[in-house]
Amino acid sequence: MTFYREALLGESKDRIVSFISSMDEDRLIVKEVIEVLIAHVDHLRSKGLIPYEVGGRALEVLKELLKNSDELFKLKAEDVHEAIEIYLTNALGVDAGWIPLGRSRNDHVATALRLKTKRLLVELVGEALKLREVLLKKARNHLNTLLPLTTHLQVAQISTVAHYLTYIEEMLSNYTSIFYHVLEDLIDKSPLGAGAVAGTTVPLDRSELARLLKFKGLVNNTLLATGSRDFICVVASLIASLAVSISRIAEDFIIWTTPQFNYIEPPLHHLATSSMMPHKKNLVTMEVIRAWGGEAIGHLTAILSAVKAVPSGYNLDLQEITKHLLKLITNTLEALTILRDFIEGVEFKEEVLRGDAYKYPLTITDLAEFLSIKYGKPYREVHKVLASLMRELSTSDISKICEALSSRLGISLEELRSIVIPENVLNARKVLGSPNPELVLKMIEDSERTLSNDYSIYEALINADAGPQ
Amino acid sequence: MTFYREALLGESKDRIVSFISSMDEDRLIVKEVIEVLIAHVDHLRSKGLIPYEVGGRALEVLKELLKNSDELFKLKAEDVHEAIEIYLTNALGVDAGWIPLGRSRNDHVATALRLKTKRLLVELVGEALKLREVLLKKARNHLNTLLPLTTHLQVAQISTVAHYLTYIEEMLSNYTSIFYHVLEDLIDKSPLGAGAVAGTTVPLDRSELARLLKFKGLVNNTLLATGSRDFICVVASLIASLAVSISRIAEDFIIWTTPQFNYIEPPLHHLATSSMMPHKKNLVTMEVIRAWGGEAIGHLTAILSAVKAVPSGYNLDLQEITKHLLKLITNTLEALTILRDFIEGVEFKEEVLRGDAYKYPLTITDLAEFLSIKYGKPYREVHKVLASLMRELSTSDISKICEALSSRLGISLEELRSIVIPENVLNARKVLGSPNPELVLKMIEDSERTLSNDYSIYEALINADAGPQ
Amino acid sequence: MTFYREALLGESKDRIVSFISSMDEDRLIVKEVIEVLIAHVDHLRSKGLIPYEVGGRALEVLKELLKNSDELFKLKAEDVHEAIEIYLTNALGVDAGWIPLGRSRNDHVATALRLKTKRLLVELVGEALKLREVLLKKARNHLNTLLPLTTHLQVAQISTVAHYLTYIEEMLSNYTSIFYHVLEDLIDKSPLGAGAVAGTTVPLDRSELARLLKFKGLVNNTLLATGSRDFICVVASLIASLAVSISRIAEDFIIWTTPQFNYIEPPLHHLATSSMMPHKKNLVTMEVIRAWGGEAIGHLTAILSAVKAVPSGYNLDLQEITKHLLKLITNTLEALTILRDFIEGVEFKEEVLRGDAYKYPLTITDLAEFLSIKYGKPYREVHKVLASLMRELSTSDISKICEALSSRLGISLEELRSIVIPENVLNARKVLGSPNPELVLKMIEDSERTLSNDYSIYEALINADAGPQ
Amino acid sequence: MTFYREALLGESKDRIVSFISSMDEDRLIVKEVIEVLIAHVDHLRSKGLIPYEVGGRALEVLKELLKNSDELFKLKAEDVHEAIEIYLTNALGVDAGWIPLGRSRNDHVATALRLKTKRLLVELVGEALKLREVLLKKARNHLNTLLPLTTHLQVAQISTVAHYLTYIEEMLSNYTSIFYHVLEDLIDKSPLGAGAVAGTTVPLDRSELARLLKFKGLVNNTLLATGSRDFICVVASLIASLAVSISRIAEDFIIWTTPQFNYIEPPLHHLATSSMMPHKKNLVTMEVIRAWGGEAIGHLTAILSAVKAVPSGYNLDLQEITKHLLKLITNTLEALTILRDFIEGVEFKEEVLRGDAYKYPLTITDLAEFLSIKYGKPYREVHKVLASLMRELSTSDISKICEALSSRLGISLEELRSIVIPENVLNARKVLGSPNPELVLKMIEDSERTLSNDYSIYEALINADAGPQ
Repeated sequence: MTFYREALLGESKDRIVSFISSMDEDRLIVKEVIEVLIAHVDHLRSKGLIPYEVGGRALEVLKELLKNSDELFKLKAEDVHEAIEIYLTNALGVDAGWIPLGRSRNDHVATALRLKTKRLLVELVGEALKLREVLLKKARNHLNTLLPLTTHLQVAQISTVAHYLTYIEEMLSNYTSIFYHVLEDLIDKSPLGAGAVAGTTVPLDRSELARLLKFKGLVNNTLLATGSRDFICVVASLIASLAVSISRIAEDFIIWTTPQFNYIEPPLHHLATSSMMPHKKNLVTMEVIRAWGGEAIGHLTAILSAVKAVPSGYNLDLQEITKHLLKLITNTLEALTILRDFIEGVEFKEEVLRGDAYKYPLTITDLAEFLSIKYGKPYREVHKVLASLMRELSTSDISKICEALSSRLGISLEELRSIVIPENVLNARKVLGSPNPELVLKMIEDSERTLSNDYSIYEALINADAGPQ
Repeated sequence: MTFYREALLGESKDRIVSFISSMDEDRLIVKEVIEVLIAHVDHLRSKGLIPYEVGGRALEVLKELLKNSDELFKLKAEDVHEAIEIYLTNALGVDAGWIPLGRSRNDHVATALRLKTKRLLVELVGEALKLREVLLKKARNHLNTLLPLTTHLQVAQISTVAHYLTYIEEMLSNYTSIFYHVLEDLIDKSPLGAGAVAGTTVPLDRSELARLLKFKGLVNNTLLATGSRDFICVVASLIASLAVSISRIAEDFIIWTTPQFNYIEPPLHHLATSSMMPHKKNLVTMEVIRAWGGEAIGHLTAILSAVKAVPSGYNLDLQEITKHLLKLITNTLEALTILRDFIEGVEFKEEVLRGDAYKYPLTITDLAEFLSIKYGKPYREVHKVLASLMRELSTSDISKICEALSSRLGISLEELRSIVIPENVLNARKVLGSPNPELVLKMIEDSERTLSNDYSIYEALINADAGPQ
Repeated sequence: MTFYREALLGESKDRIVSFISSMDEDRLIVKEVIEVLIAHVDHLRSKGLIPYEVGGRALEVLKELLKNSDELFKLKAEDVHEAIEIYLTNALGVDAGWIPLGRSRNDHVATALRLKTKRLLVELVGEALKLREVLLKKARNHLNTLLPLTTHLQVAQISTVAHYLTYIEEMLSNYTSIFYHVLEDLIDKSPLGAGAVAGTTVPLDRSELARLLKFKGLVNNTLLATGSRDFICVVASLIASLAVSISRIAEDFIIWTTPQFNYIEPPLHHLATSSMMPHKKNLVTMEVIRAWGGEAIGHLTAILSAVKAVPSGYNLDLQEITKHLLKLITNTLEALTILRDFIEGVEFKEEVLRGDAYKYPLTITDLAEFLSIKYGKPYREVHKVLASLMRELSTSDISKICEALSSRLGISLEELRSIVIPENVLNARKVLGSPNPELVLKMIEDSERTLSNDYSIYEALINADAGPQ
Repeated sequence: MTFYREALLGESKDRIVSFISSMDEDRLIVKEVIEVLIAHVDHLRSKGLIPYEVGGRALEVLKELLKNSDELFKLKAEDVHEAIEIYLTNALGVDAGWIPLGRSRNDHVATALRLKTKRLLVELVGEALKLREVLLKKARNHLNTLLPLTTHLQVAQISTVAHYLTYIEEMLSNYTSIFYHVLEDLIDKSPLGAGAVAGTTVPLDRSELARLLKFKGLVNNTLLATGSRDFICVVASLIASLAVSISRIAEDFIIWTTPQFNYIEPPLHHLATSSMMPHKKNLVTMEVIRAWGGEAIGHLTAILSAVKAVPSGYNLDLQEITKHLLKLITNTLEALTILRDFIEGVEFKEEVLRGDAYKYPLTITDLAEFLSIKYGKPYREVHKVLASLMRELSTSDISKICEALSSRLGISLEELRSIVIPENVLNARKVLGSPNPELVLKMIEDSERTLSNDYSIYEALINADAGPQ
C-alpha cells in the first residue's frame, strides 16, 4: 500500500486508500495490464536497456501471473500496477526495480484499456453478427406472415414478420460498420511508450511496442496518448445508442405479449411469474433489456460528465470512468445474447396476426393510392373522402368502407375488396425495402452477403489479436 | 391547422396544436423539407404518376418557396409539411392534392433530417479542419516554447507549446475520420419513398429519388427508414463527445489565464470585465465552451432518453429530439469557431513559461532515467532516492536536488545540471510523439498531409451536395 | 456592447459578444431583473447613499421600463443588466452612474433567478392543484368503473378507474408537499446585497432588501449567495422527476388507446391523423408528454453537468444553465395543463373494461386467498394448484378454472363463481388504499381536504408575492 | 430457481435467470427484506390469519436468518424473496407455505427499499452534520486568515478562510433541511400490505404493519405503493445535486494545491505520488470526489431514464434502478467522510494567502466604493477611472494605482493606502454574510445553534427506527 508513496509521502490511511483505489475495477483489465507489461519488459530487454537475465526472469514471473492473477488482489495496493510491482519485488527482489524504467502507469493503463476495449468491442460485434444471422434465418421463415405495423402505436400499414426482423438486422448491420470504423479510427492505436505525459528519455521504440501488442497504429502525441479518453467517450456513446435502439425492440415484444395484443408466444424460459398471482406470465427478459437502455444512458452520462472540464493530462477522474465503460459493453453484449435467444425461440401467432390484419384498416392507404392512380383523382381528395366516410359511418371496418365506397363511387365492390386484401397489397408494394415478400427475400440475400463479409472482418480481427506476441 | 385532421377528427384547440406542433423547430429544416418535396414531385411527374402540367406548376411554386419560406410560418399548421400543403393548395387549388401521392410526413421528415444533418456535419468538419490548420500553423511557431505539462494539475514533465497544440490537432483529426465514416455508414442514406412505415403501392423508384437528392445510398427497410433515429443518436453522441473533449481545452486556458499561473495572454476580445470590480479580466468565452461540454451531455441525454423504449415505427416523441440534435451540431460548430479565434490570437508568455520550466522539478524524471541507465541502477531505486531526498530536504528545487545528489552519489554536479536543463531534456526525448522539437516538427508535417487529404474529402462532399439536382 | 468593457478592455467582436451574451435568455427574467434593481435603487435612496432626486428619477424610468421592456433587447449588450444600465444612461445621463453602487450582476442575477424560480414554481404547483382537483372529481364518477390493472404490462388484479385516478392524485400531492418545502428551505431566500462574491463596503441592509422583494429569508454567506446554483440543481431535479412520473401516465393512456386495448376514448382534439393514412387517430399529446420525460432528464443533466467541478464563486458557466431551468419548469407546467385537459375529456369505455375484467383472470389471486383462508390451506399450496391447473388446461379462463377446481376439490361451483366476480372482489378488499369503492371514496374525501389545505398555502404564496413592494 | 415458476412455466435457463436476477443487489437490502417479512408474519399471526404456532416457528427462523443471511445467497433464486421462501421451506416444510398469504414481492420490496433508503439517508445526514461541525470549528480558527476569492477563477474580492468554510456549511445546512423534509413528505411511508398492485382480500391492517416497521405514515394508494419509484427519483436527484455541489469544493482544493497557487497544504495521506515521476504530489482524493460529481449525474440519469415511460404498476425495470440509488447514497456518504477528513487536516498557508491578498487588486472595488461615497461621485465614473488607469499603467498593482490616483485626484496617498488594506476592507464590509470577521463569528454561532437542532432531529430519527419492533 505504501510501495510507491513511502519515500515521498509516508503512510496513508486504509479508508483513503480504499477510496482512491481501483483494485476492484482492475480485476477486469488485469490480463491486459500484464500483457502490456510483458511487452514493455520484452522490449526493454531486447533493446539492452535492462540486464538481459533480469528481463528474462521478470517475463517468466509475469507469464505465470497471467495464468493466475488472483494473487495480486490479496495485496494492498493503490492499483493493479502497484500490486504487480510489489509481486515482482517479492519474486525478484531488488532486481524488480529495473522494470519500471520508461514506464508510467498513465501510458500502461491507457494501453491496457484500449486493448480491453478492442477485445470487448470485437466480442460484442461477434454477438451482433450471431444475432443478425438468427434474424435473417427466422425472417426467411416468415416472408408471408402478416404483421400489422404501427406508427404512434396505432395500427398503420400491413407488413410481415420478415420485414420486421430484417429491420432489426439492418440496424445492427449499420452499427457493425460503425464499430469496425471506430476500431480503426480510434481504438486500435497504441499509447505505449508515451511516459507520464510528455514521453521519456528512455529510447523506446513505440512502433515496436505497438507491434508486440498487435496494435494497428499509434496514438502519436504523448499527451493525447496518456491523458485523453476520447476513445472511451466515443465507444460508450455508440454502445449507449445501440442499447437505446434495442430497448425499442424490447418494448415491441412486451406490448405484443399482452393478452390484448397476443401477437407472440415468447419462449417459456423468458417469462417469470408472480409469487402472489398464480396466472402471471411476465416477459421479464425484455423488461431488463428495456431498462438497460435507460441504464446505458446513465453510464454514458457518468463517463462524459466525469470527463467534462478535467484539465488535460491524466487525472484520477479518468480512472473512475473505466468501470462504466466495461459495464456498458458487457451488459449490452449480454442483452444481445438474450435477445438472440428470444428471437430464436419466439413464436409469432400467425392466426392472431392474420386476424388483426383483416380486422383493422391496415390497407386503406393502399386503397386510397389505388383510387387516386386508377381513377385519376388527386390523392388528397381520395384521402379526405375516406376519412370523412370513416367519421360518418363511425367505423374503421375496411369491408364496410368498401361497401359504402362502392355504392357511393360506383366502383365494383369486388374490385375494392380484392384491392384491400393484405396479401394483395403486399405484392403491390414494389418500392425497395417494403414488406413485399419477393423484395424482402432479395433483401435477405443481400444482407446475408454483407453479413458474411462482416464475419470475415470479425475473424481477421480475432486472428490479428490472437497471433504470437 | 385543421387541414389534415378536419375530415376525420374535426377542429382542435389552439393550445393543443401549439403543444404538439413542430413549426418552431421546422424553421431549421424548412429548406431541406422543400428540397425533398421537389425531388418527390419531380419524380412523380417524370414517372407519369401525376399530371405533367400539375407537377410543373407545383415545382415552380416550390422553387420559389425555397427562396422565401417565411410565408409558411405565418400559416397555422401542425408542422411545416402541412403548412407547405396549405401553401400549395392556396397556389394551385385542388390540383395541389396530387402532390401527397406516395408521400408520408414520416419518410419526408426523415429525409430532410438526414440531409440537414449531413450538411451541418460537413460544415462542422470544415470548421474542425480550419481549427486544425490554425493549430498546426501556430505549433510551428512554438516548437521550442517551453510548457510545463501537468498530470493531476500538478507539474509533471517539461513539454512545449507546439506539443500541446498538436495534441489538440491529433484529437480533432481522429474525430474528423470518425465523422467521415459515420456520414458514409449511417447518414448519407436516403429514406425517401418508404411511405408511412411499410412502403407504398405507388411505384416510386427509391434509388432515383436518392440520386435526385445526392444521397450515396439507401436506408433499405422502410420501417427503419421512417421510424428509427439511430443516425441522430449516433451523431449526437459523437458531437457530445467532441464537446466534452473541447471542454478540457477550455479548462486549460481558464487555469492558465489566472494571475497565479499567468501562462497566456488571451486576445482582449475574449475577455469580459465586471460592472462592480474595475480590475476583472474574465476569460468568458472559454467558460461558455466549458459549460457547453455539460450542456451537450444534456442534449444528448434528452435525445437518448426520449427515444428509449419508444415502440418501433414513427412516434411523435421522435419529433421532439430534432431540436436537440440541431442545437448540438450548431453550438459545437460555434464553439470550434470561437476556439479557433482564440488560438489564433492567444499569446503564450514565453518568459513566464520558461521561468516555471526552470523553477519546478519538471525534468527530475529524466534525471532519474539518466541515472538508472548511465549508472546501471534499477529505476525504482533511483526513484526512491530522489523521492526521499525531496522529502528530507523539504524541497523540490531541482538545483538543490542536483547538489545534494552530486555530493551523495559522487556524480559531477556539472553533469547533473546539464542533464536537467529543460531544453536538453527535450532533445533527449527520442520517443515518437514526445515534445522533442525535431519530432514535433516531423509530426506537424505528417499532420499537414493528413489535413490536406481531409480537406479534399471535405470539398468532395461539398461538391457532391452542390451539384445540379 | 462596450459599455462595461471599454475602459479596461476596449472593443470586442460581434461574434464573440453574441457567443457569450445571455440577452436571449434574459428576456425570460427581465421583469425580475428590473424589480430587483428597483428594490436596490429604492434602498440606496432611502439610506441616503445616492442623491435622493437621482434615485427618484431612476425609479420612474425603471417602473416605466417594467411595463415595456422590449426596448432593452434592441440594445447591444452582454446581458440585460448592461442593457438596463445603457438604457438608464440614455435616460438620465451621467447620473445613471450612481445606480450600480454596491451592486454586482452576480447578486442581482441570482436574486432575479430566485424570484423567477419561485414564481414559476408556485405557478406550476397551482397547475398541479388544478389537475388534482380534476382527478378527484373524475374519480368520484368512476368509483365502480372496473379497470384491469397490470404489472409488467400483463393483466394483474382487478381495480377501478377511480383507484387509478387517485393514484395520480396522491403522487401529485406528494410532489406538492416537496415543492412547498423546497420553496421554504432553499428558494425563497434573498441573495441581494452580497456583492460580487464577498459583500460590499456599501452599508446595505440585506434584510431590508429581502423584505422589499418579499423574500422570506436570506442566503447568508455572500459566496453562497452569488456563486452557488444549488437551488437550480434541486428544483430542476424535482421537476425532472415529476416529468418522468408523468411520462408513465402518458404511456398508460397511449397503450389504452390502441384498438387492441381500446380502454379509453381520448378527447378528439388530443388526436392527430396522418397525411397519408386516412384512418389514423394518434394520441399525440401523450406522446409529447412521454417524450418530455426524456427531454426533462436531458435538461437536468445539462444543468448538473455544466455545474460539475466549476470553481466556487460565479463563473459564466452558471449563466448557461438558466435557460434549461426555465424550460424545465414551463414545459412541465404545460404538460400538466395538457394532461388536465385530457383527463377532463377522456372517456373510459365501461363496457370494454368490464369485458376484459370478466375475460382475464384478474381475480384469481383473490380466489387463492379465499381458498387459503376459508379451507385452511397454506397459500403457496393453493397458488401452485391454480398455476398447475392453468398449465394443464392451457387456459387462464377463470370460469373454466372454477369448474375444474370445483370438481377437483369438491367445492361448490356457485361459491367459486361468486368469489371471482370482480365487483365482489373489490368489496372484499378491505386493506387501506385498495380499489374497494367505499375505501376509495373515503380516500377521495381525505384527499379533498389535503387539496383544500394545499390551495390555501398556494394562495398565501401568491398573495405574499403580490403585495405592495 | 424454479420455485415460483415451476407449476406454471417449468424450468428456466441459468443464463436467463442470472440475467433477470437481482440476487447481487439484494445483498444490500437483505436485512430490510427480512425485517419486512418478520412484520408480515407477526401481523398474520396476531390477526389469526395463519396458524399461531407456524407463525412462531417462522419468526424464529427469520430472526436467526437476520443474523446470518449469507446462506440465502448460496441458493439459486430470482431474487432474495424467493430465496427466503426456499430457505423457510427447507426449515419448515410445507408449513412455510402459509407465509406468502397476502404478500407480494411488489409491496415487500417497495417497503424494504423505503426502509433502506430512510436508513441510508439518515446516515448520510449524520455524516453531513459531522462535516458541518468540523467546518464551523475550523472556521473559528480562521476568522482572520485572508483568502483571495475568485469569480471566473480570476481574483475578485478579499475574503477569509472562515468565510469560505461557512459557505460550505450553509450549503450543507440547506441540504439537511431538504433531506429532513423529503424523509417526511415522501420516504417514511409504508407501502406494506398493498399486494401486487391493487391490494388483497386478506384482512391486513396496513397501519399496524407500518407501526411494526416504525414508518411514520402510509403510501395510501396500492398502485402508487407498489408501482411507483418517485421516492427513488427524488432522493437520487437530491443526492446527485449534493454530489455536484461538493465537486466544486473538490475543484477549489485541487486548484489551490497547485504550486502556482500554493494556498493549502493537504494532509499527506490525501496525496498520491507517481511511479515514474519522483516529485509528484497529487491530490487524488479530491479528484475522486470531483469525478463522483459526474458519476452521480450518471447514476441519476440511469434511474430517471429507466423509469421514463414504464407503464404504471410494477415492472422489472424498477428492480434495475435500486443498485444505482444505493450506489448514489453510499458513495456520496463516503465522499462526505473523506471531505471531512480533508478539512480536518488541511493547512491553509497563511503567508502565501496574505502575500496574494496584498499582491492582487482584491480591494480595488472597495476603494471604488469608498471614492464614490466619500467624494460623491457616481460609482460608474469611479469604476471607469480605475479601469482606465489600470489599462493606461498596464498594471493591476494596487499600490501603484493608489499612487496614480492620489496625484490625479489630489487625494491623500495615505488615506488611499489605508483604504485598500485587506484587513481594513474586511472590517468595512458591514453587510450580512460578508467575510467581516465579527459578522462571520456571529454567523458561526447561529449556525452552531441550527446544527445542534439538526443533531436533535437526527437522533430522534435514529431512535425512532431503533426502538423495539
